[in-house]
Amino acid sequence: MLTGAEVAKHNGRDDCWVIVHGRAYDVTEFLPEHPGGQKIILKYAGKDATEEFDPIHPPDTLEKYLDKSKHKGPVDMTTVVHEKAEESPEEAERQKQIEQMPLLEQCYNLLDFEAVARRVMKKTAWAYYSSAADDEITLRENHAAFHRIWFRPRILVDVEKVDYSTTMLGTKVDLPFYVTATALGKLGHVEGEVILTRAARKHNVIQMIPTLASCAFDEIVDAAEGGQVQWLQLYVNKDREITRRIVQHAERRGCKGLFITVDAPQLGRREKDMRSKFTDGGSDVQKGQATDGSQGAARAISTFIDPALSWKDIPWFQSITSMPIVLKGVQRVEDVLRAIDAGVQGVVLSNHGGRQLDFARSAVEVLAETMPVLRELGLEDKIEIFVDGGIRRGTDIIKALCLGARGVGIGRPFLYAMSAYGFDGVDRAMQLLRDEMEMNMRLIGATRVDELNPSMVDVRSLYHHGSVPADSLSLSAYDPLVSPPQRAPKAKL
Amino acid sequence: MLTGAEVAKHNGRDDCWVIVHGRAYDVTEFLPEHPGGQKIILKYAGKDATEEFDPIHPPDTLEKYLDKSKHKGPVDMTTVVHEKAEESPEEAERQKQIEQMPLLEQCYNLLDFEAVARRVMKKTAWAYYSSAADDEITLRENHAAFHRIWFRPRILVDVEKVDYSTTMLGTKVDLPFYVTATALGKLGHVEGEVILTRAARKHNVIQMIPTLASCAFDEIVDAAEGGQVQWLQLYVNKDREITRRIVQHAERRGCKGLFITVDAPQLGRREKDMRSKFTDGGSDVQKGQATDGSQGAARAISTFIDPALSWKDIPWFQSITSMPIVLKGVQRVEDVLRAIDAGVQGVVLSNHGGRQLDFARSAVEVLAETMPVLRELGLEDKIEIFVDGGIRRGTDIIKALCLGARGVGIGRPFLYAMSAYGFDGVDRAMQLLRDEMEMNMRLIGATRVDELNPSMVDVRSLYHHGSVPADSLSLSAYDPLVSPPQRAPKAKL
Amino acid sequence: MLTGAEVAKHNGRDDCWVIVHGRAYDVTEFLPEHPGGQKIILKYAGKDATEEFDPIHPPDTLEKYLDKSKHKGPVDMTTVVHEKAEESPEEAERQKQIEQMPLLEQCYNLLDFEAVARRVMKKTAWAYYSSAADDEITLRENHAAFHRIWFRPRILVDVEKVDYSTTMLGTKVDLPFYVTATALGKLGHVEGEVILTRAARKHNVIQMIPTLASCAFDEIVDAAEGGQVQWLQLYVNKDREITRRIVQHAERRGCKGLFITVDAPQLGRREKDMRSKFTDGGSDVQKGQATDGSQGAARAISTFIDPALSWKDIPWFQSITSMPIVLKGVQRVEDVLRAIDAGVQGVVLSNHGGRQLDFARSAVEVLAETMPVLRELGLEDKIEIFVDGGIRRGTDIIKALCLGARGVGIGRPFLYAMSAYGFDGVDRAMQLLRDEMEMNMRLIGATRVDELNPSMVDVRSLYHHGSVPADSLSLSAYDPLVSPPQRAPKAKL
Amino acid sequence: MLTGAEVAKHNGRDDCWVIVHGRAYDVTEFLPEHPGGQKIILKYAGKDATEEFDPIHPPDTLEKYLDKSKHKGPVDMTTVVHEKAEESPEEAERQKQIEQMPLLEQCYNLLDFEAVARRVMKKTAWAYYSSAADDEITLRENHAAFHRIWFRPRILVDVEKVDYSTTMLGTKVDLPFYVTATALGKLGHVEGEVILTRAARKHNVIQMIPTLASCAFDEIVDAAEGGQVQWLQLYVNKDREITRRIVQHAERRGCKGLFITVDAPQLGRREKDMRSKFTDGGSDVQKGQATDGSQGAARAISTFIDPALSWKDIPWFQSITSMPIVLKGVQRVEDVLRAIDAGVQGVVLSNHGGRQLDFARSAVEVLAETMPVLRELGLEDKIEIFVDGGIRRGTDIIKALCLGARGVGIGRPFLYAMSAYGFDGVDRAMQLLRDEMEMNMRLIGATRVDELNPSMVDVRSLYHHGSVPADSLSLSAYDPLVSPPQRAPKAKL
Repeated sequence: MLTGAEVAKHNGRDDCWVIVHGRAYDVTEFLPEHPGGQKIILKYAGKDATEEFDPIHPPDTLEKYLDKSKHKGPVDMTTVVHEKAEESPEEAERQKQIEQMPLLEQCYNLLDFEAVARRVMKKTAWAYYSSAADDEITLRENHAAFHRIWFRPRILVDVEKVDYSTTMLGTKVDLPFYVTATALGKLGHVEGEVILTRAARKHNVIQMIPTLASCAFDEIVDAAEGGQVQWLQLYVNKDREITRRIVQHAERRGCKGLFITVDAPQLGRREKDMRSKFTDGGSDVQKGQATDGSQGAARAISTFIDPALSWKDIPWFQSITSMPIVLKGVQRVEDVLRAIDAGVQGVVLSNHGGRQLDFARSAVEVLAETMPVLRELGLEDKIEIFVDGGIRRGTDIIKALCLGARGVGIGRPFLYAMSAYGFDGVDRAMQLLRDEMEMNMRLIGATRVDELNPSMVDVRSLYHHGSVPADSLSLSAYDPLVSPPQRAPKAKL
Repeated sequence: MLTGAEVAKHNGRDDCWVIVHGRAYDVTEFLPEHPGGQKIILKYAGKDATEEFDPIHPPDTLEKYLDKSKHKGPVDMTTVVHEKAEESPEEAERQKQIEQMPLLEQCYNLLDFEAVARRVMKKTAWAYYSSAADDEITLRENHAAFHRIWFRPRILVDVEKVDYSTTMLGTKVDLPFYVTATALGKLGHVEGEVILTRAARKHNVIQMIPTLASCAFDEIVDAAEGGQVQWLQLYVNKDREITRRIVQHAERRGCKGLFITVDAPQLGRREKDMRSKFTDGGSDVQKGQATDGSQGAARAISTFIDPALSWKDIPWFQSITSMPIVLKGVQRVEDVLRAIDAGVQGVVLSNHGGRQLDFARSAVEVLAETMPVLRELGLEDKIEIFVDGGIRRGTDIIKALCLGARGVGIGRPFLYAMSAYGFDGVDRAMQLLRDEMEMNMRLIGATRVDELNPSMVDVRSLYHHGSVPADSLSLSAYDPLVSPPQRAPKAKL
Repeated sequence: MLTGAEVAKHNGRDDCWVIVHGRAYDVTEFLPEHPGGQKIILKYAGKDATEEFDPIHPPDTLEKYLDKSKHKGPVDMTTVVHEKAEESPEEAERQKQIEQMPLLEQCYNLLDFEAVARRVMKKTAWAYYSSAADDEITLRENHAAFHRIWFRPRILVDVEKVDYSTTMLGTKVDLPFYVTATALGKLGHVEGEVILTRAARKHNVIQMIPTLASCAFDEIVDAAEGGQVQWLQLYVNKDREITRRIVQHAERRGCKGLFITVDAPQLGRREKDMRSKFTDGGSDVQKGQATDGSQGAARAISTFIDPALSWKDIPWFQSITSMPIVLKGVQRVEDVLRAIDAGVQGVVLSNHGGRQLDFARSAVEVLAETMPVLRELGLEDKIEIFVDGGIRRGTDIIKALCLGARGVGIGRPFLYAMSAYGFDGVDRAMQLLRDEMEMNMRLIGATRVDELNPSMVDVRSLYHHGSVPADSLSLSAYDPLVSPPQRAPKAKL
Repeated sequence: MLTGAEVAKHNGRDDCWVIVHGRAYDVTEFLPEHPGGQKIILKYAGKDATEEFDPIHPPDTLEKYLDKSKHKGPVDMTTVVHEKAEESPEEAERQKQIEQMPLLEQCYNLLDFEAVARRVMKKTAWAYYSSAADDEITLRENHAAFHRIWFRPRILVDVEKVDYSTTMLGTKVDLPFYVTATALGKLGHVEGEVILTRAARKHNVIQMIPTLASCAFDEIVDAAEGGQVQWLQLYVNKDREITRRIVQHAERRGCKGLFITVDAPQLGRREKDMRSKFTDGGSDVQKGQATDGSQGAARAISTFIDPALSWKDIPWFQSITSMPIVLKGVQRVEDVLRAIDAGVQGVVLSNHGGRQLDFARSAVEVLAETMPVLRELGLEDKIEIFVDGGIRRGTDIIKALCLGARGVGIGRPFLYAMSAYGFDGVDRAMQLLRDEMEMNMRLIGATRVDELNPSMVDVRSLYHHGSVPADSLSLSAYDPLVSPPQRAPKAKL
């Protein structure tokens, strides 16, 4: 058994141990990969980090992510000096922001939650949630694309009763969206993904459970009640046995859909996140020898993902589960056709929230490309098409449904609502979407989801990427031309 | 008979009575729905609100909107303590703005009135007039669409005399626009809609009387003189008998057109308005129990509107009136054709000033879609087509006429002119439009309205929604990428 | 003979006389129409204004513009008290700007002169020169249109010698532009249009003499030397005898082209100019009775123009002169064809610098529409096509020539150069254009003007008015949506 | 032999000698042409400038650029007074910026180096590198064009191993880019182009040696190691013998490709550069007599370039070398076809980094125009097509390769990386591109360069120049319209 004093020796960047739940771990090599940044770990170098660790990590984190050789064994906790962490000025400022945050009732739409979350979340957590690939063009295009779709509403339709319920993979849901999978929910809220579970249940929509959740898979399933339906999002492990165990466990626990992520053979570099995690080693670190902290959270948590995953693996998945299989991250019509050939039950048109390949097109543009081809080939009923990315308004949902989507996935907005206001935030976010759905179904002249059709939208401008989201880095590095300067006034004699 | 002391007990948010014209009313449940915000009512909780109430409400308001059960009966006014309301800092600032407002002669175009009104109107009134649906994209697109229409003027036409008079539903008018219906005129000016009546008469244009006017219908009709023509705008009540009474009363009083609003089965959520009306309950209100003030004025005043109104109701309207019937709020060519089939006399292509369905297309774009189809089918003379939304310039009017509109409706600009300068403002606004019409008819080379034709405009860019109005909420919630920051200077030793 | 004391009595806004060159004039009614604003006249009400008048008016101004009944006759100047005008704070600030203005050598392009002129010109003069119709969209589109034309340069062409001379209406010129007609040159520089005459001669380009010059026509002709060619720009007078005299006089004095303005049956309202001229009458003027100063300079000087001018007048012009006739202000291909039919020698595609009809298309867009039609009909050599508006760069000129223009007119840029630096400014502006022509002819791979052809430009984006110049007034009157506000911090107890 | 005192007499703008390496030179006439601005030379007028000269000039500079008549012969250095130059305030500020510059690890992409270089480079050097022709529209369009190309990625491709190596003109390279030729490397870093040589070697990419390098050609070749491949960029001299010597010397020294610049018969005017070099002569210089410093660096160093170079010279080049010949600066498909006819081995589609003809189209747009034509004619394998201009991201490279480019040239980004961080900067820049290539090849679903194909990109918006880069000069010279101003508050009595 180790003593506090022994652990305390390993208290530097080059040799860093921490104690969690009475056991010591050597996290030296893990430092630069830590999703929350290395600074927070270094603060506990050689010390007991349990109090900081607990609220944001799934219980099995260290087992799963840290090589056994780094497990240094139990510590005699009576020998460990306990000290109270003091609050940083940034944290003090953040607490002030939290104190003054708007009342929940002042949030009138999903973007409002994002604005509030930006003010009250920890900077590193905000950076992880909000960042995307390269210049974040696709991130913004995802929502902007909806702004190039206009309505052709019908009038004088009796819309006293409107019904926006629908069916996804055989499950009846009250609203045509689902909570899509997003990683590391505890970065935003101490309870993590189970908050989304409870909100999904209240509004009778489906939650997709992420592979990279902060809560353990079983915790999330346990939080579901009364026949509430959940799906499993899967990053495929290089070790297929692990994958098999995960899939079959999920099916046994009642999951009703297997969403295999296919747009992330490697997780993206997100520079905003990397920049937020950067820690200046200070003058004592030799330039060139500094550990490169530039990988960001996404890479750190995803080294297990198999870049060799390919179409030839699909039959194997079909052999190990009877859940409907959906490919998440399809990005062109050719691959939708191939998915139909492969016999899967659905595809999610998605670019991973703009976090993977910058300049991937928006899902809704791919949808508009896909459906006419499917209809032409008589295949439109052979597969369920979902879209995600950039959905913020009821009108966005309606546009996707008009174009042929079965339903839409919503991720970040619920994370932001949760990060700012917890369960109440997510609940209100869903309620706002419900209100917007009701209002706008009426205004477009449709009483049921199946009345929504392509004649109700004008997509002629959708393909025109004439006004691309601003290229912030280029703009800030460019020196605009200036007119001739005035000369200095002559000095008075 | 109630005493002042008895009424005074009901002086809180949870139990709120007010006295108006010597009678007490329980407005507790109505508070959150008050178009002017609940704050102003709470100021008079348990007191006599007549002085505040009178200038902005039609005399029959409480009768019409407040359930009989809330009418608490007469009050012995000798027992009521009268107190002078004191001026708030915001109101003091507004009074200062009013003192310094530009002279009327400094307003050179309709947008100038809007800029002045924004400075001098009460914030809640400004919010009600200026707000629109969701992200207010359609609101701005309405005017922006005119900016994608360019002229192909003819030269060397003798334009010494230009005549911009025309005929609408059989009425000869001096200018090809009418004053369209807008709600709650007294929010902008104490006299309300009758100011518009007088200005319309002076310039010989038609006024459309709104269902939701601040002045009573008969007041507005009484304000008309000398055969001045008025139309009736109708929100159809769930109780068709009420609707029948309104329509037949209007016809008897001389109205020459019935404009049935068909784009508002439910009145829109307007977040700017909702935000302006929000009242922080303060620390004594339990979070979650706070009354949700989020509905805004539009919803509050429109609960009677029938969302079940449909094409099958049209024959009934035709049976109860001989006024020409016009459908206001048509938004696609298919519905124009259906209106012709239904035998109505006209349609107004309109998206309700952007206040209903965001991403509805501009009326002028729908016009450009509609007229070629009508001409192709030989139907262009079967119906009168009006457009409204976003018209601010004489050139906007001319563009609409070139494309085939019979006339255009103008709403908010006159409200702004009225709010800032009263009758003189509206008079000048109309005069400015007249000047612009004269000038620009000459410059385009047309001497009469019927010489305006599609060859005079270039609409090739109209359908391109390449540069969509700015998405303010998204932009403000987005963190732009930044270049690497400089490091802090080293501390001096 | 009047005495100074008698004149001095007429010293108010309602009764205003001034003395010029020893004669008194009643300018009361003219006040609001004064191109320079009424303020400057009122400063001299009842006094001798000769010193102020002289530098900016043609000698025959009062004869031409002021009704004989307002000529009050000679004044005994010995009885007139002379007082020195004192400098206003604005003028002092302007003088400071002038002192610090950049050296001429710091102006590297035509836009630089505009930037300098904006700083050093009198505000009213700047407003007159720089203003345009309505929202000034066309003003800006004129230059912006060139930015939607891209080059397809040829390489490996021997461009050691490049020759950018050409021929216009039979005159050989060294550069493919001419100085187009612009009004009121003395607003910018005390010497007025003769500066342009001298610069045009130095660079062997043609000057078009404006009807509304500050210098008298004969002064401008007299300033020409050595066979220098000039053209006459003509506003056609309602009194055709006056027009006949002007035209025949010009021909006798050697003018080689008659450019009849056809885009201005009435001169435009220019709000920026009107706003700059506005004078607040102060508290002693009754609201409503205040003289409306809103017409601006353009209207004031143009009441003689005949709005009845039409195609049927063309033969008459052909009968009174043998100068080539060119229609200035043609704006669609149909009218170019009609001009060919009418037998005129040329057209200027122009929208009057954006000063007349807002949303008129740019001349270069009309050119791109016109030439293919002419070529299709075999008419491309039947007429000379000029364009003006928005030309600021050598590349703009080359683009117009590639598309088929014979030459381009340049107006404002030379006025700005003249206003800032006098003759040297205009000289340098022309030299800069010459340098840009040489450089860019080389870079596009053409050695002579006649080698420029449509294959050298890519005009596919020209017709797309996707990004229209900013609508400043709308934008400034619009309240952007905002995210929920933070609440006030709780008061400390 | 001259004495220090004799040289010291020539110490003014009108008579300026300097001493370099013990020899005096009369640089009076050269002053305005000095690429680094004349200010820096004047500081050493009449003095020994060796210390300042050495770090940024190739050893043979004065021999090559200064007429023999200006070589004044050896100086007795014992008679020369040596004085220490004192630091200017600008330089002090710059040194402060350098002290605080971000760590190299904080640069996450190529644009980051540009942002840092902008802060830490000398203003004149920054101006030379960053400036471009006229309004710098093409400069910015070059990168912006890539933002109008979107991806159509393939999913479920086994991308465990991705290989982005390729072959250019027969040379196998590890990455599909080369270091293109850029002038005056020592302006950015004291060691100059050899830094690029070393970085190119480390990453096994090809360096193109510029004619206008700061290092001597042989220095750069000598810096290459281990069979490292270099190409020669050639500005063709009016004296073809000089050109022959350069070409044949390069071939003897092992260069494997001859890139003849064909887009620069004359080097461009770059106003930003000119403005940065401008030196106010002060009040003692007569206006009009001031030396015109307006030519900028580019012109100064390029007077030898032959503007008569044409297609007929190509056979001569083929006769004097057996290196593959590539035409650098082709800008339309017609000239690519002609290049194939002429039998050259390659073309670089390029507009010279936007430094020559403004409104030249981006290379990638020309590529998208070219390849379908070549494929149609079966010529796509007859020539290697390279592109340069605006490449900043791995995705930019992949887009160009998808469209058919053999490889891409990158210039300024490496200069910026070098200027800010020397070799380490360039090394990291290349490493970042390598990382981006790996990531994005995976994400687009390609494992080898030859799998990239046109179906993977959506170029429908590429031709739309709807949103052109901002026209800074026009925008800053334009006075936006304003709403009516409030009036001044009344004075208190």
